[in-house]
Amino acid sequence: MGFQQTHETNQVLLSKIAISDGHGEDSPYFDGWKAYDNDPFHPENNPSGVIQMGLAENQLSPDLLVDWIKKHPKASICTDEGLLNFKDIANFQDYHGLPEFRNAIASFMGKARGGRVKFDPSRIVMGGGATGASEAVIFCLADPGDAFLIPSPYYAAFDRDLQWRTRAQIIPVHCNSSNNFQITREALEVAYKKAEESNIKVKGLIITNPSNPLGTIYDRDTLKSLVNFVNDNNIHLVCDEIYCATVFKSPSFISIAEIIEEMDHCKKELIHILSSLSKDMELPGFRVGILYSYNDTVVSIARKMSSFGLVSSQTQHLLAAMLSDDEFVDNFLVENSKRLAKRHARFTKELEKMGITCLNGNAGLFVWMDLRKLLKDQSFESEMELWRVIINEVKLNVSPGSSFRVTEPGWFRVCFANMDDNTVDVALGRIHSFVGKIDKKENNTIPMPPKKKPRENKLRLSFSFSGRRYEEGNVLKSPHMMSPHSPLVRAKT
Amino acid sequence: MGFQQTHETNQVLLSKIAISDGHGEDSPYFDGWKAYDNDPFHPENNPSGVIQMGLAENQLSPDLLVDWIKKHPKASICTDEGLLNFKDIANFQDYHGLPEFRNAIASFMGKARGGRVKFDPSRIVMGGGATGASEAVIFCLADPGDAFLIPSPYYAAFDRDLQWRTRAQIIPVHCNSSNNFQITREALEVAYKKAEESNIKVKGLIITNPSNPLGTIYDRDTLKSLVNFVNDNNIHLVCDEIYCATVFKSPSFISIAEIIEEMDHCKKELIHILSSLSKDMELPGFRVGILYSYNDTVVSIARKMSSFGLVSSQTQHLLAAMLSDDEFVDNFLVENSKRLAKRHARFTKELEKMGITCLNGNAGLFVWMDLRKLLKDQSFESEMELWRVIINEVKLNVSPGSSFRVTEPGWFRVCFANMDDNTVDVALGRIHSFVGKIDKKENNTIPMPPKKKPRENKLRLSFSFSGRRYEEGNVLKSPHMMSPHSPLVRAKT
Repeated sequence: MGFQQTHETNQVLLSKIAISDGHGEDSPYFDGWKAYDNDPFHPENNPSGVIQMGLAENQLSPDLLVDWIKKHPKASICTDEGLLNFKDIANFQDYHGLPEFRNAIASFMGKARGGRVKFDPSRIVMGGGATGASEAVIFCLADPGDAFLIPSPYYAAFDRDLQWRTRAQIIPVHCNSSNNFQITREALEVAYKKAEESNIKVKGLIITNPSNPLGTIYDRDTLKSLVNFVNDNNIHLVCDEIYCATVFKSPSFISIAEIIEEMDHCKKELIHILSSLSKDMELPGFRVGILYSYNDTVVSIARKMSSFGLVSSQTQHLLAAMLSDDEFVDNFLVENSKRLAKRHARFTKELEKMGITCLNGNAGLFVWMDLRKLLKDQSFESEMELWRVIINEVKLNVSPGSSFRVTEPGWFRVCFANMDDNTVDVALGRIHSFVGKIDKKENNTIPMPPKKKPRENKLRLSFSFSGRRYEEGNVLKSPHMMSPHSPLVRAKT
Repeated sequence: MGFQQTHETNQVLLSKIAISDGHGEDSPYFDGWKAYDNDPFHPENNPSGVIQMGLAENQLSPDLLVDWIKKHPKASICTDEGLLNFKDIANFQDYHGLPEFRNAIASFMGKARGGRVKFDPSRIVMGGGATGASEAVIFCLADPGDAFLIPSPYYAAFDRDLQWRTRAQIIPVHCNSSNNFQITREALEVAYKKAEESNIKVKGLIITNPSNPLGTIYDRDTLKSLVNFVNDNNIHLVCDEIYCATVFKSPSFISIAEIIEEMDHCKKELIHILSSLSKDMELPGFRVGILYSYNDTVVSIARKMSSFGLVSSQTQHLLAAMLSDDEFVDNFLVENSKRLAKRHARFTKELEKMGITCLNGNAGLFVWMDLRKLLKDQSFESEMELWRVIINEVKLNVSPGSSFRVTEPGWFRVCFANMDDNTVDVALGRIHSFVGKIDKKENNTIPMPPKKKPRENKLRLSFSFSGRRYEEGNVLKSPHMMSPHSPLVRAKT
């Protein structure tokens, strides 16, 4: 790149979307990724680099996937056994998807939700990852200006996925620690009425279950209450269930699909489910997003929108074979859940030893870590100060609660499943040392190390762990001094 | 599917996009595909079925692709040789794309355009097929209501791709046979002024080069004149070059990239190129669309939009290896071009023997067939009558000119590269017999065969040839009687 282009010229020539910051990348959530990309940790080559704990990726069971592929060469169109299918598959671009792919996805969705409910392959609509699928459902449901209620904290990139190009808007319904961040019907009613009074048309409610960033799941009563809420107001309920197979301890996950089967009075055409293989099957690169809608028109229209982001037929073909192998899927789900449980238990127990607690969760690839006691005061400025120390000095990319639109400062989302055991050890060691330093300092400030030049991007390193990388040339803001308080000291008071 | 859902309820609950027909599928272009899908030709199983000549797919050189893959097992992540890369690739979701993929795409884009111009990998932006990439560039350039001039006839699905979700609008600039459907600066100026007078903001000009549906390419002078036009009016030029490697005889293809290097005064930031591997490399199922922009902001913003339709990392990895093999790519481009030339020559010569001429083209996977002499009168009603006979009686799915927004009735786009030699023979035989019947009939009408029930969809059959299939339950309108005139009879008069 590098033509001389004036910013002012572009402002006139491009769309409002292009010159706005609706993509949402100007947030600490993404700044943390840039910090990681500028100085990525590597055990030998860069042991003092930033450890990526801002990326909700599951990397605990690739061996199971690799084993299966090794044993099933015919599932690929690039092996001697599978090449016969190459021409047909390479030419396949039907937006319904390969019939065997849709069947396998429907079967997988059932298994990943405990096997208590069946999914109809004819309602499976492909999207370009959950990102594309979630944008598509909004395009189907909302006109520009229409709103969706979303309990906060919520996934940091929803602002981009649901608002940016659709021109719909999110109305956060704030939850807080007083009841473990649970949403209530009362809070929804208040938000709904307030919106209507402001002449904003509320088109639906969107939840993530399991919750990102909380790592918790919704119970049966709450889900029923949400269905009643949308029924009563005749608005939609979009359930983002892309983490449903990451539930690693009891209680079991309950899908909205199960709930609506149980309820006598339910307008099914208001219910839509988002699913994916990125978290549940550790395949984010394969870009499999699924919209499962109980609304016939939404199925038909969203399928037409699939053309903007179909899953590669090469990938559909492989996954059709893999996900229709019942024994493999059953085993993978059990084993992966065990590994997540083990990692989660180890991580949270070590944190507890240091006096750091997390919201009690049983799902997801992250914990919702409570560092309120480390804040200078209970403000988001203090949260950002603490975050800058963590990322610049402790060298951990964790995501501050503010990027998830929470209203209570001091919470951080910390991902624990996107690294190996050794990297977890290093991360825990750094946290331990950080907490220790705070305890030892009488003036409660953290010493700043000498500034050093950020390393050049190492692409080969970065792409294996990083999610999306961000624009070259973006640099993290300089670290600021701050004065966190030790959780231990506070805990004693 | 099959809940009872009232149409009226949905109208209220869904978006205007969802309840409009902006997806553009209610057109004979797509009806023809449905007709094919309901009764697909197969040499043994259904020899009297509809032959798909409405699908611009290149199926002439799969053997070259298969050979390469056989020799390069390491390029796949599903072979013993390549499995080592599985974990890293399956986790890779960076919206910049694999560095080696971007490099390979840039190199391929240069080769496919005659090797006279270089492309910068940092300007390569991925999209979900050309469909996703072209929507993304419109989102970057236009606000709702903004317009783009497009010479007509143009690609039938542009209405969906460029207008539907972006809410931008297309203003066709009509071309006709008097100058072989070439666009002129004068016609553009008239259309531009008329739009401005109607208070419509024209944001750019979009061309397909090689042209779909014409099968022709733009010459150097015309391209320079178009660049001057956008320069003078300070609007964008989007060049859809997804057929650039299908040029099979002279003159050579000239990319806009070459033109702007030659011109002294050119605002490069107004120029954007769309590219793809669907036509050039026969890989439509792999969903590789590329936006190459000379505008830094568009590159940056469109890349953020990539998240809605990234190319599967499995596919990126394979193509990175394949397209960086210079010898293979060079050979493929030459050989594929030869095969297209041969097929095109055979097809057009046989048509000529029957008195049917086509616009003189040298590119694309289709001919622009002149059946004006077969029309009862020079109206689109007559065009549709003729089309219904062709699809229902001759059993060929060709696409009527009206679906490409041409203003002159009687032209049809006929695809010739998506079938084997035997199917071409059957298709030519049917045309021959059709023309013969017309000659023999004194009253110049075609006898209607007894109606028969449409066959059930055969998914395994349909997906190998069909592009996108359309909603179940849609049925083609009943055939109507019509009275075409023989091209031979007319030609003699």
